[in-house]
Amino acid sequence: MSPANRNPEIRKDAVNNRTVILSPARSLRPSDFKSKSQAKPDSNPSSDGQPQCPFCSGNEHQCAPEIFRSPEDSTSDWKVRVIENLYPALSRDLKVKSDDDEYCQADVTAGDVSLGGFGFHDVIIESPVHSVHLPDLTSSGVAGVLLAYKKRIEQLCAVDSISYVQVFKNHGASAGASMSHSHSQIIALPVIPSTASTRLNSMKEYHNQTGKCVLCNIHTNKLLIDESTHFISISPFASAFPFETWIVPRYHSSHYHELDEDKAIDLGGLLKLTLQKLSVQLNDPPYNYMIHTSPLRITSSQLPCTHWYIQIVPQLSTIGGFEMGTGCYINPVFPEDAAKILREVEMP
Amino acid sequence: MSPANRNPEIRKDAVNNRTVILSPARSLRPSDFKSKSQAKPDSNPSSDGQPQCPFCSGNEHQCAPEIFRSPEDSTSDWKVRVIENLYPALSRDLKVKSDDDEYCQADVTAGDVSLGGFGFHDVIIESPVHSVHLPDLTSSGVAGVLLAYKKRIEQLCAVDSISYVQVFKNHGASAGASMSHSHSQIIALPVIPSTASTRLNSMKEYHNQTGKCVLCNIHTNKLLIDESTHFISISPFASAFPFETWIVPRYHSSHYHELDEDKAIDLGGLLKLTLQKLSVQLNDPPYNYMIHTSPLRITSSQLPCTHWYIQIVPQLSTIGGFEMGTGCYINPVFPEDAAKILREVEMP
Ligand SMILES: Nc1ncnc2c1ncn2[C@@H]1O[C@H](COP(=O)(O)OP(=O)(O)O[C@H]2O[C@H](CO)[C@@H](O)[C@H](O)[C@H]2O)[C@@H](O)[C@H]1O
Ligand SMILES: Nc1ncnc2c1ncn2[C@@H]1O[C@H](COP(=O)(O)OP(=O)(O)O[C@H]2O[C@H](CO)[C@@H](O)[C@H](O)[C@H]2O)[C@@H](O)[C@H]1O
Repeated sequence: MSPANRNPEIRKDAVNNRTVILSPARSLRPSDFKSKSQAKPDSNPSSDGQPQCPFCSGNEHQCAPEIFRSPEDSTSDWKVRVIENLYPALSRDLKVKSDDDEYCQADVTAGDVSLGGFGFHDVIIESPVHSVHLPDLTSSGVAGVLLAYKKRIEQLCAVDSISYVQVFKNHGASAGASMSHSHSQIIALPVIPSTASTRLNSMKEYHNQTGKCVLCNIHTNKLLIDESTHFISISPFASAFPFETWIVPRYHSSHYHELDEDKAIDLGGLLKLTLQKLSVQLNDPPYNYMIHTSPLRITSSQLPCTHWYIQIVPQLSTIGGFEMGTGCYINPVFPEDAAKILREVEMP
Repeated sequence: MSPANRNPEIRKDAVNNRTVILSPARSLRPSDFKSKSQAKPDSNPSSDGQPQCPFCSGNEHQCAPEIFRSPEDSTSDWKVRVIENLYPALSRDLKVKSDDDEYCQADVTAGDVSLGGFGFHDVIIESPVHSVHLPDLTSSGVAGVLLAYKKRIEQLCAVDSISYVQVFKNHGASAGASMSHSHSQIIALPVIPSTASTRLNSMKEYHNQTGKCVLCNIHTNKLLIDESTHFISISPFASAFPFETWIVPRYHSSHYHELDEDKAIDLGGLLKLTLQKLSVQLNDPPYNYMIHTSPLRITSSQLPCTHWYIQIVPQLSTIGGFEMGTGCYINPVFPEDAAKILREVEMP
């Protein structure tokens, strides 16, 4: 039976409690819009008559203040820089909220609440060279970026009023990127976002029912793509997007920032391989990745049920009103099929 | 103080329990990607060498089966057609699930569950003419489309295993549309999607605390855009997107399909005006709208707390990893500012 004739299926996983519709027939629908020309990152912005890229080595003065660089004592030969975002979504200068007054009631009758936009918004520049993208680095080069995330999260942890840290990467204009130079971002929030609390509750429920951590126990049978010493890459059972891929630690760990140097190099290798496979198979698609960690200040009783992972999403289609309205995604590619394809990608 | 200098704010409303970051400074950030050329709907697909549009009058035979048309006894002079989607996300032919077995456990150890993809997926063709878009119709023309939604929902209600009906519209390629001929869609689901259950819980909580319906009580002070006899249009307090607009009935009503003919004409006028204002102000942006109604089979004790509304979202930017990761949106435009601008749009 060709995949497109398969019956649709509604799936839900115990990690996010997320409902998806798997519907292969959807991939056949026609379009009378001209196909989007994929905006490719410029490899050399200045030859284009565009201003110099502030993230390139030599243009450090065009950036917002640096937080740290790696190696620490490097000068023009830095490998990774963590800087403040010049156009931050949240402000590090606002008065820190008091503990017992998280939100203030903006309009009691209407039930509206608001809170000053305190928080941190940083940029991680992953390479000094404009044309070098994350998977072009060596495994230990990628590990350098992963360890910069860790170090920055540890610093943010020390700020009492920060409850959650979201690390994410946008690659390519249709994945939301406004800058083409390889980078990722970190936003530290004074509240726990809804996805993180839903995930925490869902993982807790699974743990209550089974006594086990859901991600230590994950179903890999037909869904495994690759494995390294400490990590696996899989197509998740309830994939919301075609070729959505997760990288999950094989050891139990609630917080990303518990990563040590050895494991970072191992993870660097698997992340590089995964991004390369997606690029070869899907023709250098725009993509996002997100590190899903646990809220910073969970109780010790919550530690056994929570487990961090990285979600990688190639951006192959535009979502529509159904997804916006319901929060439920329609995915034309069964994850079993995506895993098989990605398992078998021949690397050049 | 110019809006861009305003401090960021984190807001949450009692309707959806949705957290957003309002951050005017974000609107100033540069981009080194070339700006997307807005894919405009083709006004005449055949002159383009493209195949004839199946939604145009005369091409009815190229479509999946018709469910009904309006007027009922029209021939080539139909105004609205409701047809089956030829590439449906869910299948109307799958065996209906039994009541006590909503999901079946796909892999008990992993906590994964799945359900056959039973459901309905229809298309509403809003005009027989390719170049006529929804707001080009008269108020009673728009009402004809709104009443077609109502009639179809009433039919779907009669199917026991359907729990929720999502009506939505995609206009323009970057809002996800694959067809440029003016249309909307209806998907009827055998499960209640997460946004609808979160909304139900949030509205119930507000009702428990105040004894009132949150949307009957909505804060309109600086957020009102327009009003008609039975409806208001507002910028919601916790707008997730720039110029997000809601149309809310001024009378209490849990289910969209309670709409009667008089109110449909009134709503048709306000929806037309709102879409025209967004088009004038934002230069014919791609957009989505979603009708947020209540689950079909709620208890009578839930009727006083739930209230339907229409959410209209112009698609002005691409979301990134932060929104995908956290479910929290960064919006550079304060809703008070959007409401003022939309209130004052001069209609040509
Ligand atoms: N000289 C400089 N010094 C320091 N920082 C500089 C700088 N010049 C630019 N920046 C910052 O660099 C960042 C580059 O980020 P990305 O390209 O990943 O996407 P961006 O955050 O713009 O928006 C995407 O991601 C966000 C978050 O997901 C979405 O809200 C949005 O819609 C989507 O387009 C921007 O945040 C910008 O503010
Ligand atoms: N001859 C014919 N007869 C009957 N029906 C026909 C037909 N030819 C095409 N169709 C259907 O017409 C519909 C047109 O819908 P839209 O243009 O609103 O977006 P689409 O559903 O393709 O996807 C957008 O909306 C969905 C739901 O939000 C998202 O999953 C997706 O990513 C986004 O691009 C399609 O669903 C298609 O299957």
